[in-house]
Amino acid sequence: MKRVVTRSGDRAKGRLEAFSDGVFAIAITLLVLEIAVPQVSGDHLLEELLRERPTYLAYFIAFMTIGIAWIEHSALTEALDHVDSGFQRLNLLLLLLVGFLPFPTSVMSEYLSTVDDKQGGEQVAVAFFGVALFLISLVLLGLGRYAAREGLFGDDAAEEHTEESRIRYQLAPSLVLYAVAIVCGLFSPYLAVALYVLIGVFLLLPVQTLRRWLHRSD
Amino acid sequence: MKRVVTRSGDRAKGRLEAFSDGVFAIAITLLVLEIAVPQVSGDHLLEELLRERPTYLAYFIAFMTIGIAWIEHSALTEALDHVDSGFQRLNLLLLLLVGFLPFPTSVMSEYLSTVDDKQGGEQVAVAFFGVALFLISLVLLGLGRYAAREGLFGDDAAEEHTEESRIRYQLAPSLVLYAVAIVCGLFSPYLAVALYVLIGVFLLLPVQTLRRWLHRSD
Amino acid sequence: MKRVVTRSGDRAKGRLEAFSDGVFAIAITLLVLEIAVPQVSGDHLLEELLRERPTYLAYFIAFMTIGIAWIEHSALTEALDHVDSGFQRLNLLLLLLVGFLPFPTSVMSEYLSTVDDKQGGEQVAVAFFGVALFLISLVLLGLGRYAAREGLFGDDAAEEHTEESRIRYQLAPSLVLYAVAIVCGLFSPYLAVALYVLIGVFLLLPVQTLRRWLHRSD
Amino acid sequence: MKRVVTRSGDRAKGRLEAFSDGVFAIAITLLVLEIAVPQVSGDHLLEELLRERPTYLAYFIAFMTIGIAWIEHSALTEALDHVDSGFQRLNLLLLLLVGFLPFPTSVMSEYLSTVDDKQGGEQVAVAFFGVALFLISLVLLGLGRYAAREGLFGDDAAEEHTEESRIRYQLAPSLVLYAVAIVCGLFSPYLAVALYVLIGVFLLLPVQTLRRWLHRSD
Repeated sequence: MKRVVTRSGDRAKGRLEAFSDGVFAIAITLLVLEIAVPQVSGDHLLEELLRERPTYLAYFIAFMTIGIAWIEHSALTEALDHVDSGFQRLNLLLLLLVGFLPFPTSVMSEYLSTVDDKQGGEQVAVAFFGVALFLISLVLLGLGRYAAREGLFGDDAAEEHTEESRIRYQLAPSLVLYAVAIVCGLFSPYLAVALYVLIGVFLLLPVQTLRRWLHRSD
Repeated sequence: MKRVVTRSGDRAKGRLEAFSDGVFAIAITLLVLEIAVPQVSGDHLLEELLRERPTYLAYFIAFMTIGIAWIEHSALTEALDHVDSGFQRLNLLLLLLVGFLPFPTSVMSEYLSTVDDKQGGEQVAVAFFGVALFLISLVLLGLGRYAAREGLFGDDAAEEHTEESRIRYQLAPSLVLYAVAIVCGLFSPYLAVALYVLIGVFLLLPVQTLRRWLHRSD
Repeated sequence: MKRVVTRSGDRAKGRLEAFSDGVFAIAITLLVLEIAVPQVSGDHLLEELLRERPTYLAYFIAFMTIGIAWIEHSALTEALDHVDSGFQRLNLLLLLLVGFLPFPTSVMSEYLSTVDDKQGGEQVAVAFFGVALFLISLVLLGLGRYAAREGLFGDDAAEEHTEESRIRYQLAPSLVLYAVAIVCGLFSPYLAVALYVLIGVFLLLPVQTLRRWLHRSD
Repeated sequence: MKRVVTRSGDRAKGRLEAFSDGVFAIAITLLVLEIAVPQVSGDHLLEELLRERPTYLAYFIAFMTIGIAWIEHSALTEALDHVDSGFQRLNLLLLLLVGFLPFPTSVMSEYLSTVDDKQGGEQVAVAFFGVALFLISLVLLGLGRYAAREGLFGDDAAEEHTEESRIRYQLAPSLVLYAVAIVCGLFSPYLAVALYVLIGVFLLLPVQTLRRWLHRSD
């Protein structure tokens, strides 16, 4: 999309990026539709807006997760020299999961609410959400592996190396952490939610910028 | 979008790709809005989530169909040298059908459900969905034909040849298969649904990658 | 977006095109959300799907209108050398109207329905929809005029001339026709709907392709 | 996206622009979903459409705000030489707020309505909306500051200077004005709404074009 391109594989990559950007952008923006407008009398509006905290939290985690997945996806495809038809299909699987995320988000925010007759479902709702996050990380990791094995990075060994360490130090640990969070959720749903937030923060760490700041303050 | 472009037709092609990517991406992501959040007490959440299987299946087939249509569309427009105003209009018809797909998807998922008073409509719902899939394949095929007849491939005979064989070995057979599935659906709706999945898998076959793997294992 | 660009105005044009493509693509795809899934017993599904004809018609006209507006917008911005901040604002007004269109569409499809207690509102609903179509054409025409007056076409006199004749022979007559349709609608709503379809077909005429076919058959 | 690019930072910038354009475009178009179709008998349709004025007003202000934020964002990123991973995260925060805006918009339009049992909540609803507008301006300002401090403008001192004066003369004052409007809203909600419109108009002023017109009339 951003280079003078002469090979067909590279043009396919530009389309794949544009289509993926679209799906990520839409999924992340649709999340807000799940937040219901309060239907209470005007006097209790403030109270009601404050009571919807679990909804805001679910919105925030889901937004952060899709945002991270987009950043990872963006870093991966930029490092690639070209894409092949297998990569296109695996990418479609990632988009399927990303596009599906608003549903578990919405289930979780509904069943974390304080309304009485919904209580008792927190464990299931939180685990369901966690499984979706786990699968997104898994397919992202799979995309990177596939690209390396099929030689999609071209001759750019540096790019491939960066991707390798990103998988080793961020994506792979996150898989373990999500699994832990899901198991925790069976006992304490709110602990799991706290872990989802922490994993998100961990994945969001702008390693490159932080390192520059550390060096500067020397 | 990805080349240093000097002719006006090529610029129109970039816009057409961007707009189409947008519509495909949105239609594919809107599908999730059709999945309703369970409104049951917390104790029955897991049960209810499992009971929504027809909905997940409908989501999956529709997602796969739009994904395939995007891959085909992407392959076709990349092979083109330029687009003309007739191609733009025919493309708009394709987008009309793609944008409409969430509706038959939603009807099918509603009437495949196990709720009693909706039973009896599976045949109609499944056939309605199948007709939409059939029409999308038909217009995709029509776009390829139009491009060949109007010389939109330019001098690139290889590209035109690839497109020809794609039409012959994937799109044209899929039309016959969809027609068979729709007729089957009048007797056994679930058989038709199974056929939709199989046709999707057939269209998704990453011929190019599979061939490379086969050669490698020689 | 598609050229090696060196001037700042041209870069602003690329962003404006991308953002506009997004809004057009989303508005056109959101239209389907207005079509409600039938809530009848399975036996009456077919009947109910057929009864929703006014809804499909409204969907079709609105889809066609946004599609045409996109084609016109695409032709105009491609002809431009650069955009200025005034053009950006006027363009935002166009997007406001395009983004708003799903609402009058939905009102019209609701009040054209055959449900008894909604009858009597067809005139208002059809006129409301027509006013939206009229305003979209008006702002499109305004964008072309503004571009010509501010010299945004650069030195490309041919492009400016094409745009001039597009305004004279398609956009300007469509304004008159929409006004006629709105007035007709006060007496016969269905006549107005038929006129909307005809105006859409008129604006969709792929003049360039038709002319080529005519010449070929000589 | 619009230049022959050779450095990795610049390619990341292209993806960031495309993704942001997507989120802005979707958020701005989703706003229309908040406008409910009247459910009254046909005779009262016109009356009901006119009664929904607060909804149209909320739609208009929110549309204008997102449109302005997009114009500002577009001007900022175009001036940049490249983006870093810190900018990517801060940008994600901006998109979070932009994607969230349809919710306060919808709350405000609901509680400004004339339905009796919703009255009394206007102050809260209007302030909630104002806080969202304030935060969007704040993060936009933060993005500009961050870019200047991290040297993301490259060697282009002119671009950095333009951005500086944009912050000083438009964004910074708008923060003060939003704060004033929120406080006013606690006493008179409609005054606050009027101020939101005025701030929007102030931010929309196409300074560049106006100046050209003034000079021309000399």
